[in-house]
Amino acid sequence: MKALVYTGPGMIEVLDRPRPVIQAPTDAVVRLLHASICGTDLHILKGDVPTAKPGLILGHEGVGVVEELGESVHSLRVGDRVLISCMTACGACKFCRRGISAHCETGGWVLGHHVDGTQAEYVRVPHATLSLHPLAASIDSRAAVAVSDAFPTGLECGVLSANVQPGGSVVIVGAGPVGMAALLTARLYTPSLVVMVDLDEARLETARQLGAHATVNSGVADARARLLALTEGQGFDSVIEAVGIPATFDLCQELVAVGGRIANVGVHGTKVDLHLDRLWDRNISIHMALVNATTTPRLLRLMESGELEIGKLVTHNYPCSEGVTAYSTFQTAAQHQALKVAIDFSSSN
Amino acid sequence: MKALVYTGPGMIEVLDRPRPVIQAPTDAVVRLLHASICGTDLHILKGDVPTAKPGLILGHEGVGVVEELGESVHSLRVGDRVLISCMTACGACKFCRRGISAHCETGGWVLGHHVDGTQAEYVRVPHATLSLHPLAASIDSRAAVAVSDAFPTGLECGVLSANVQPGGSVVIVGAGPVGMAALLTARLYTPSLVVMVDLDEARLETARQLGAHATVNSGVADARARLLALTEGQGFDSVIEAVGIPATFDLCQELVAVGGRIANVGVHGTKVDLHLDRLWDRNISIHMALVNATTTPRLLRLMESGELEIGKLVTHNYPCSEGVTAYSTFQTAAQHQALKVAIDFSSSN
Amino acid sequence: MKALVYTGPGMIEVLDRPRPVIQAPTDAVVRLLHASICGTDLHILKGDVPTAKPGLILGHEGVGVVEELGESVHSLRVGDRVLISCMTACGACKFCRRGISAHCETGGWVLGHHVDGTQAEYVRVPHATLSLHPLAASIDSRAAVAVSDAFPTGLECGVLSANVQPGGSVVIVGAGPVGMAALLTARLYTPSLVVMVDLDEARLETARQLGAHATVNSGVADARARLLALTEGQGFDSVIEAVGIPATFDLCQELVAVGGRIANVGVHGTKVDLHLDRLWDRNISIHMALVNATTTPRLLRLMESGELEIGKLVTHNYPCSEGVTAYSTFQTAAQHQALKVAIDFSSSN
Amino acid sequence: MKALVYTGPGMIEVLDRPRPVIQAPTDAVVRLLHASICGTDLHILKGDVPTAKPGLILGHEGVGVVEELGESVHSLRVGDRVLISCMTACGACKFCRRGISAHCETGGWVLGHHVDGTQAEYVRVPHATLSLHPLAASIDSRAAVAVSDAFPTGLECGVLSANVQPGGSVVIVGAGPVGMAALLTARLYTPSLVVMVDLDEARLETARQLGAHATVNSGVADARARLLALTEGQGFDSVIEAVGIPATFDLCQELVAVGGRIANVGVHGTKVDLHLDRLWDRNISIHMALVNATTTPRLLRLMESGELEIGKLVTHNYPCSEGVTAYSTFQTAAQHQALKVAIDFSSSN
Repeated sequence: MKALVYTGPGMIEVLDRPRPVIQAPTDAVVRLLHASICGTDLHILKGDVPTAKPGLILGHEGVGVVEELGESVHSLRVGDRVLISCMTACGACKFCRRGISAHCETGGWVLGHHVDGTQAEYVRVPHATLSLHPLAASIDSRAAVAVSDAFPTGLECGVLSANVQPGGSVVIVGAGPVGMAALLTARLYTPSLVVMVDLDEARLETARQLGAHATVNSGVADARARLLALTEGQGFDSVIEAVGIPATFDLCQELVAVGGRIANVGVHGTKVDLHLDRLWDRNISIHMALVNATTTPRLLRLMESGELEIGKLVTHNYPCSEGVTAYSTFQTAAQHQALKVAIDFSSSN
Repeated sequence: MKALVYTGPGMIEVLDRPRPVIQAPTDAVVRLLHASICGTDLHILKGDVPTAKPGLILGHEGVGVVEELGESVHSLRVGDRVLISCMTACGACKFCRRGISAHCETGGWVLGHHVDGTQAEYVRVPHATLSLHPLAASIDSRAAVAVSDAFPTGLECGVLSANVQPGGSVVIVGAGPVGMAALLTARLYTPSLVVMVDLDEARLETARQLGAHATVNSGVADARARLLALTEGQGFDSVIEAVGIPATFDLCQELVAVGGRIANVGVHGTKVDLHLDRLWDRNISIHMALVNATTTPRLLRLMESGELEIGKLVTHNYPCSEGVTAYSTFQTAAQHQALKVAIDFSSSN
Repeated sequence: MKALVYTGPGMIEVLDRPRPVIQAPTDAVVRLLHASICGTDLHILKGDVPTAKPGLILGHEGVGVVEELGESVHSLRVGDRVLISCMTACGACKFCRRGISAHCETGGWVLGHHVDGTQAEYVRVPHATLSLHPLAASIDSRAAVAVSDAFPTGLECGVLSANVQPGGSVVIVGAGPVGMAALLTARLYTPSLVVMVDLDEARLETARQLGAHATVNSGVADARARLLALTEGQGFDSVIEAVGIPATFDLCQELVAVGGRIANVGVHGTKVDLHLDRLWDRNISIHMALVNATTTPRLLRLMESGELEIGKLVTHNYPCSEGVTAYSTFQTAAQHQALKVAIDFSSSN
Repeated sequence: MKALVYTGPGMIEVLDRPRPVIQAPTDAVVRLLHASICGTDLHILKGDVPTAKPGLILGHEGVGVVEELGESVHSLRVGDRVLISCMTACGACKFCRRGISAHCETGGWVLGHHVDGTQAEYVRVPHATLSLHPLAASIDSRAAVAVSDAFPTGLECGVLSANVQPGGSVVIVGAGPVGMAALLTARLYTPSLVVMVDLDEARLETARQLGAHATVNSGVADARARLLALTEGQGFDSVIEAVGIPATFDLCQELVAVGGRIANVGVHGTKVDLHLDRLWDRNISIHMALVNATTTPRLLRLMESGELEIGKLVTHNYPCSEGVTAYSTFQTAAQHQALKVAIDFSSSN
């Protein structure tokens, strides 16, 4: 089969690889329709993730059709169209019992990390019962790739951690795919104010189309003052960091209201300053989390009922043979006005 | 001044009464713009509320302008346009400290019950700081009367008690004003299914216009089966009773899903059956509450930002002089296709 | 092997039965050390549980040693001493994902109900990973049988449902084994008042020894008044019903404070009255649940650390050969001053 | 009257001052029995709190007798023995409505900060209804001074923020008065492991007497390893920082388990490092708060019922005339084996 393989720092290639097979009774093999690229794939490509070794098929996002099932998987049938969750979960270890499947003792983020991933014609999915979700007929396969990771991350690590509430105020710093997913899922709770912050005007325009009440370009000199003015100087009840650098985390600390919450969604490569001298008495909290993807069934119900419009997040689409181009588009996303970039395996297999 | 006075069981009259004055430093006197009639007013009129004595000015709902303030009220100014909450709250007793202002030791439901109410040109409002809410300029005075009682009741006693969640399923039994308020505030949480139940087709049509995904007329023989079919036989996560009779409470017990909640909003005059033999092992809960009106500021923010459309609830409007007709319209609401009935004091005073 | 078999309404016998074997890769076979009898076993014996057929080995409580493991069970080893949970859970169905394992689609209460149970020398336990809990060396095997069902039921369906809090007031109606477990687990949250109610003075004496601040015999004429007097007429924040008849559920409705909760633990055979006419405006809730046994690991940690003293709940112990006597003792528990009655298989196998 | 007056950086004196009088209808004047010294008083004394001006009577902790009441205070009577809360609260502003009384718009920490405080024979207490708590006869006046600030701070900012739970693991870094209060209130929730960390062996010995399961001296080279070993390398569910310097906040970040919480109680004078690069995916949260003192009635009920033993926190006691010595003892608390230091006004007035 064809697969996108990480062959060493900075290198990705479309290669022929053997089709995966069932290895454990809890496995499934899925034939991919669409996969997509996540920021974490770029981290691997840069060589920043030592646990991901050259030779690995990349990807933890995708939609496909069940090709084969291990004998212990009773919740699915061969032929089912399924969403592949970015998180595999056993459902029984001490972390899964507490709902922290991101830290599942035999699962978590394994696809495209510890084992071959979804950017291929076929993938073996461990712990298939909890890691694959049947898709209703009305849900578009390509659009749904955003529900593998971006949507549950925006909802769980952003919106729920930040305790977005009806009538509350929300600011989201970073209008990439996960920031946009946070915006769309924040609106599920009808805050009275959602403000989006980014350096890219095109992304801010998209944010307004997706329902942001206001946007502020963080490149302007008085960005902080403009943001606080939108709350009459009170700050925001819910602050979502969706970039992952010290400057944006600093901004979040300046924007949070007394009694508010900061939810960190960004992947950080360095330590940051925490201004405890200014914040210790502000009755706030800071939340950081890897997604558990326990909200995926809920998100799929909302898509099916038409209450959550996710289609606009996948902006680009390439056939498998152009997978390398797909990566270069995603690496320079802003200049291509790209959010999620999908790779199409449906015609090739 | 003119006032609507309860003069004995079955009797209501427009009478001249002296204008109220400040009695305590925490009082305010408000000049009414609009008042409205609640189902509880009808209970008094029938003679069912012995604590309400003949001679009482009715009403606990209204919008007006602050005319005079006691010396301890610092949060308001004379001339402010304000919403009058159905609940007065001291903010300091053991119940207010716990957020249960409905049971405030010196407040709660006092207007139009223990002291003269809002259906008059002027009203004295005790504990004014917590019982009056300034209205933003963009909010329509007449529409806002539904926020005195119906909206916080629908939200607190209905939606929050029933734990409505994004992607969840909701059924609301009773499409009167409070049921409709529950519908509109349930949608703040974006459930994937909201079903409205009533005997009146016109109200069901209104419910569909206000966003119900489906409606079922409870008068049809297989209503229960139709309702369960909408959930593939699973039952509803959130069940809201907004009628107040044994038959509807019974229906709610048949509709609740394993792990779900029943929220009682209806005012009940008799005991009901609780089918513990069928329900004891279903992991459900039943919630009953008088509104605390602690969500009122939140509802007003949502109105101001345009995220909550409340205008359609006030269907009828009468001048003060026709207050008795207003009552008769509300008493036969269904045949007038009436929801909230307002009384206009703005031209008379 | 020897087993206690339900052979028809009113009949139980010690019979020879074949040893169970592994049937699915997720099974375990456990050699019993101690089993115990639950009130539900008596319901079966009376013929009240039609899903339990004659020929069934009874019991869903016990401690034993792992004898054999299915190939998919990786969390345990042969020879481990384990607690058998009254609930088997797959960990993956829609109910298990929400923490409602009592309603697991392929589990729940199956032992001694749909399949042969624990009152035998050996038992096959389905879904072994989530249904068996390794026991620390310091935990006594016989005492631990109370953690199969009574303790998690008292904690989850009683204490957590009733929201027992530090400084709160609690009344527990019914001082049987589950009521006593509710008492001991309520004290984990340090309420300032726990009152125990029963008809049996010996049980009330035991309750005082186990930490009840006060007890009231519900047989005295002014029991209700005495109970309310203990709260200065306010009622109790947390009311736990642990009997299962209309009279006790009625008493609970009279004892609950404004803003409080009623947690039903009793198994009810008939409907009851719910006094909505008196309670609709009291801001209370009523909770009913079958135990999920998700708190079992927590309870075992508390036992191991010495913070939860459970030993006094198992009052009687019989060898397997006297299993029928064990049942008759439990059927007339009060006259034997019995709480939990255990059956010892450790010497016979 | 006699009062302890801050007369400039580093200077405190016992001076004669006029007795305070009622200024607003919501005030009370209280005759002090006992006051106590808080770490914040030392901050003022050092000149670190510019909002506290020379000439100020210090102190926000104390127990006394109501001498005079403003006309709007109905919940108290002259002669009542009362606890003075460190926080004054109006009960009506937007923060009080949300339970964040620490940020009350006209209250919060005002005593001994913006207005004269409790270390005097008399004090005027604004917003008396919510800021004074009647004391049951059984509660010792001197012991109760620890409930003005230390106990609600330990409970709210420590135990509740850190979500201490039955069966959970807790580490408290810092065994001063607030750390000890966190220990005693953590035990209200019966964690299975509470470990206390400090540099002072005498305080660690006291911590063991007060119920710590283990203690670790943070001065030993392998303190971090010893602490983690107590949790078998998993880290602690609840981590409470009760010192207020970068080194201890750093230690807390190393001790928190996946899924755990860090509660900051310490008052910090500088920013700290937050190791987001190591923590972003650990599903943890960090909580920082000024005490709201909303738990004070609950703490007083627990004292009255004997469920919370607070007496051991007040280790030293001086008459008013030796107030300066009281401060020097508290400034060098460790060498005097001091926790709370009280000042006795009961004999002088």
